Parts: sequence; C-alpha cells; structure tokens
Amino acid sequence: MQPGKIYGIGVGPGDPELITLKANRLIKSATHLAYFAPKGAASYARNILRNMKLHAVEELAFEVPMVSGRAPAQIIYDQATARLRTVLDRGNDVMLLCEGDPLTYGSFIYILSRMRAFYEIEIIPGGGAIQACAAISGFALASRNEQFLILPAPLDNATIESALAGVQSLAIIKLGKHLERIRVLLTQKGLADQTYYIAHAGLDTEYHCLLNAAPMNIIAQPASQHEIIS
Amino acid sequence: MQPGKIYGIGVGPGDPELITLKANRLIKSATHLAYFAPKGAASYARNILRNMKLHAVEELAFEVPMVSGRAPAQIIYDQATARLRTVLDRGNDVMLLCEGDPLTYGSFIYILSRMRAFYEIEIIPGGGAIQACAAISGFALASRNEQFLILPAPLDNATIESALAGVQSLAIIKLGKHLERIRVLLTQKGLADQTYYIAHAGLDTEYHCLLNAAPMNIIAQPASQHEIIS
Repeated sequence: MQPGKIYGIGVGPGDPELITLKANRLIKSATHLAYFAPKGAASYARNILRNMKLHAVEELAFEVPMVSGRAPAQIIYDQATARLRTVLDRGNDVMLLCEGDPLTYGSFIYILSRMRAFYEIEIIPGGGAIQACAAISGFALASRNEQFLILPAPLDNATIESALAGVQSLAIIKLGKHLERIRVLLTQKGLADQTYYIAHAGLDTEYHCLLNAAPMNIIAQPASQHEIIS
Repeated sequence: MQPGKIYGIGVGPGDPELITLKANRLIKSATHLAYFAPKGAASYARNILRNMKLHAVEELAFEVPMVSGRAPAQIIYDQATARLRTVLDRGNDVMLLCEGDPLTYGSFIYILSRMRAFYEIEIIPGGGAIQACAAISGFALASRNEQFLILPAPLDNATIESALAGVQSLAIIKLGKHLERIRVLLTQKGLADQTYYIAHAGLDTEYHCLLNAAPMNIIAQPASQHEIIS
C-alpha cells in the first residue's frame, strides 16, 4: 500500500483568523490530525482550531513533559514518530498542527528529521508570534539594512549582552521564568524604555506595554506566550 | 465627518493561498486598496491577489523609484501619506497591502510613522518570505535556544563576517546584486555546503538548491524575491 503523506501545518500565532487559506483548506479536509501538548494541559496549536468545523477526524495528541534537558522530549518525539508511521503506513495522510511556523523553533523540526527519508512531507508556513506581537504593539521589527535577531531568553546574561551589541533590533522569546532577569539586564543597558513587552498575543488576555512599565503581577505567565521586542 | 481607518495588511510571501483568513476577509470587503510598486513594474503585493474576486474598489498605487539613498523614497512616502489622508478624511477606510508582514522590512513602517498620531490604524500580521523559503527547502530555521539572525545582504563584508560569528542560524535577505559577493564570503567561511539558496518562493519560477550548487545563471534575479538560509 502507498503510504500516506505528512503535512507540517503552521496555524499561526494564536488568533484563529490568522490561519492561512491553505492551512484552513487542508485542516478542513483532514482525516487525521496530530499535535503536541504540554503534559497535563491543552495543546496550544489544537486550541487555535477550537471554532473550526472539522471533518470527522482521528486525533493524535502527543504529550511533552515540560522539563529541562533534551532526553525526555527526544523519547516523546521517537514515540510520536512510531505512532505517526503506523497511521501513515495504512495509507492515511496526517496533518501535524504547529503553533506559529513549523520550522521556527517548532517540535515539527524533530519529526521532520526522523521522517524525511521515508515519507512524502509538505510544509505549510505560518505567521509567527513575533509578527503578531509587532502588530499588536505597533512597534516595527526592522527596516532598511538593520539586522534583526531572535534571541531565546534562557541564554545566559553574557551571551545576551554580547548579542545586544551587534544588532539594531531584536525579539526575545521563551521568556517564562526568565522575564525578571531579562528586564533587569535591559534596564541596566538603558533599553527598557524602548522595549515592548507583549503577553498572550491574540488571546483574550492579551497585554502589552513598555518593558519599564510592566507590572510585577504579569511576570508569572506561561512560557512561549509572551515576547519582548526591542 | 469621522475619518476612515487605515489597515496595514500582510498578504504573505507570494502564494495566494498563504494569505490569512483575516486578510482575505478584509480585502474582500475593501472599497479602497492601496499598495506600493517599484517604478515601472507591477506591485508584488497586489499581484498576490490576482485571482481574488474583489468588491468594486478604488485602487491607489504608489510608485517607488528603485534607487539607493533615502531621499527619493521618503518623498514618495510623504506623497502617499497626503493621498491616503485625502481618502481617509472623506470617511473611507483604506487597506494598504504589504508583501509578507507589514512591520518586517516593509514600506508600511514609513506610513505608520507618518499616520499614527492622526488616524486609527490596525495591522494584520502576515507570514514572511523566510518561513516560506524554509518550507520549500525543508531547512529548519532555528530550534531550542539557538539565536536566529536576519541579515540584509547590502551590509559590508566585515559586518557580515562579524555577525556570522555569533549566531547558529541565519537568513540573508535583499540579495539582489550582492549574491555573488555573499556566495564568495560564505564559501570562504566553509558554509556554502550547509546554506540553502531559494529564489522566487511561491512563484512558478521557484528554485532552490544548496548555495555551492547554485548555477551562475540565476544570479541576476530581482531583489527581495530570493533569500539564503544558513
């Protein structure tokens, strides 16, 4: 039997209307939807489709433990790959939902590396959280010949300070528990009054302000749902 | 009379199906569409809508001379702003189409800075060319705590070499006449066999290969329609 095809489908940054026409068409025709979810919580990518009328589908949810270190997640990716292969080998196409863009800091990258030698794969790019944050705050990301850097907050202060020196514009992602440290660092560098903080872009709880005006009580937000643009 | 509202609408990287549901809905309801176009050529953003059924609209095309230096384009942005204000002040909403994302290296940034004090503005983020290039090539952009840099090719070699040293992953944009210089530089750094070259993403003339396999005859492509991912 001809094996099925796997689609890596970017579903955008959170607002269900920021899904592309192509992703919308493919998802509505899907018989098998797959997605990752933090262990014990709802899948962010799946939640973006909450109001969409879907064809009768089988859903494959892969739980990822939210702990540091590579090993636990790598086991999950191996297990997810095995389950996906079983479904694909029966001739079914599978659409793997990806928050934002599949190839920008996404779990899909790990599935792609395990599957690309064996299956036909199509990737549908999606808009990212950083662009959504820029649109909400009205803060331009980069223009003309500026360098634009995306910097994960878990990096240590020395690495971040070194990165700040070379670029004209940047977005700091994966803030999580690192927000307060990053805020102190950017304040010391004199950047807090030209840096925007955006939380929960596209959700009802969306919030944005200049970093030096960010109230302490918004610091304890879940990771991957808030960003800084400087 | 209540002035109209201006929308900065990202229409994605080129494939008409990579427009978002929200951009699609707004454009179909538009009475006034505006866009920039290189002088003497078709607007890339407008062309993405070529197959879309539009409401009866008035179209405002702003021609931008493709020359170096800021002055000529700044005059065009001043003139475009004046025309937009005339239409808005009559109570009409205007949708300004933006290739990719409005706030990522877009002309919309210059309109925003001129209009934001006077008019209601809504920005609809769009997927970018870099994500589209990644999807075409199957080349992941960044994962985990990697830094990801967007680097405009017109920067000089010393600046580019310095930027290459600090990051794990990057995209080089605005290649234009700079492609051969960039190829030589990346080859000297031993990066040409791990760098992807993508031209005309999403168009019928789409082309991609490893940079060290790029044929000479694809070097003379128009700017802003090809990229490098390393």
